[in-house]
Amino acid sequence: MSNGDARPIGVFDSGIGGLTVVSALRRLLPHESIYYVGDTARVPYGGKSPTTVQRYSLEIASLLLRENSKTVVVACNTASSVALAALEAELPVSVTGVIAPGAEAALAVTRNGHVGVIGTRATIKSGSYERALRALSSDVRVTAAACPLLVPLIEEGWLAGEITEKVLMQYLRPLADAGIDTLVLGCTHYPLLRSTIGRLLGDGVSLVDSAENCAASVRALLGREKLNTATGQTGRLRVALTDPPDSFLRIANDALQLDVGEVEVRAIG
Amino acid sequence: MSNGDARPIGVFDSGIGGLTVVSALRRLLPHESIYYVGDTARVPYGGKSPTTVQRYSLEIASLLLRENSKTVVVACNTASSVALAALEAELPVSVTGVIAPGAEAALAVTRNGHVGVIGTRATIKSGSYERALRALSSDVRVTAAACPLLVPLIEEGWLAGEITEKVLMQYLRPLADAGIDTLVLGCTHYPLLRSTIGRLLGDGVSLVDSAENCAASVRALLGREKLNTATGQTGRLRVALTDPPDSFLRIANDALQLDVGEVEVRAIG
Repeated sequence: MSNGDARPIGVFDSGIGGLTVVSALRRLLPHESIYYVGDTARVPYGGKSPTTVQRYSLEIASLLLRENSKTVVVACNTASSVALAALEAELPVSVTGVIAPGAEAALAVTRNGHVGVIGTRATIKSGSYERALRALSSDVRVTAAACPLLVPLIEEGWLAGEITEKVLMQYLRPLADAGIDTLVLGCTHYPLLRSTIGRLLGDGVSLVDSAENCAASVRALLGREKLNTATGQTGRLRVALTDPPDSFLRIANDALQLDVGEVEVRAIG
Repeated sequence: MSNGDARPIGVFDSGIGGLTVVSALRRLLPHESIYYVGDTARVPYGGKSPTTVQRYSLEIASLLLRENSKTVVVACNTASSVALAALEAELPVSVTGVIAPGAEAALAVTRNGHVGVIGTRATIKSGSYERALRALSSDVRVTAAACPLLVPLIEEGWLAGEITEKVLMQYLRPLADAGIDTLVLGCTHYPLLRSTIGRLLGDGVSLVDSAENCAASVRALLGREKLNTATGQTGRLRVALTDPPDSFLRIANDALQLDVGEVEVRAIG
């Protein structure tokens, strides 16, 4: 038996929220090595224009290719929403985003066919989740809301408490009133608010995120393209950021129980 | 009499909050032209490292010099806090930041000598206001607080209301309890929250920002360096952003009653 393809899976995000996808990949594909780049020097992407997000995504993806990545995973919902086609057109390796996996996850659990989506301004404005959901199910109903304050709240470490609940309800009440029974957490940061959101919306609304389904898509892709590493290997995780890490890395590390080890800093832009 | 020096005053900020300084400059120096660049492609600076903010500041300042600016005004508190020395060392024109003017404004109004400062993480971590205040008054007492949620709240347009008040009190209560009688609004966005902050802190606390004093410093500098334009001129305001403008520009425009006209977009980074 061969040693398989030991090159890393390249994963990127605008910041470190994409480590939620890394966490799912580690669980599902423990033998695979991962090279992660978070563009913390230019975070957030969620309020920026599609043109700028496309340019940043191509630049970060080129860092992943320089590390010999065998495939590229776009862990950022904003970049997946507005830059996936540009990445697929430009990169010599296959590209997996988080939108289609998130849409699949939502359709697998909705009972009344009414799905809510929350995300950054750019993600919601792009209509990416609506398109992905409708491509899979023509009669799905979608209600979406941009929630630009959630990322700053999470990065401040306010994952629960009165202020966070009030901000959440300001954004979520219209979705709950509209009758959604499933909510897509359409930003890699949002799973850190999962328990608070779940408490506010109650048992009647299922929460889904893209991480598990995205990891499953990557597993299927590796099999299809014969890119799996040998199962005797233990995968290595390397994390690089474009700006030195701050306190949020600790918050994410604690929440994800992910040992990112020493963080590299790579200049860009 | 000569026509004076008709070259523009160059002003930059990480985003469009620096238009508060432009507004003060327009009132004080109506004959001067202004070229403003907001680095909206990489906003915010407030959570990023000093090295990255220095690099961005030098890049944006070079855009101002290409427009033939006769002097550079750093309207961003974060850039003024961590990049002023680098700019002064590198640029061939004089540079005015907002920290010293803000410190002067605070010392002019404090009665009990206890000044509060709020700003971004980078501004507060730099200790720039403490240093500037102590350089002017050795016995001033300073209590500072980083308020990373305020910029996102303002950019969401939530300038008042229950959530905004609760977030503000979370940040301001320790300063009020410590006994400050003056608060420096140490971020160009914060003047948009002035009335809400004033109501929460009451008449016992004076609010100061850097805009007026910064404009006064620039006026003094122009006189000192003989850079004034002829008084018969009407100054022109040009605004460029590194990413296309979004809805916040409208909010700022309305609040500042500043006619920015057509906005140029300049690629960088």
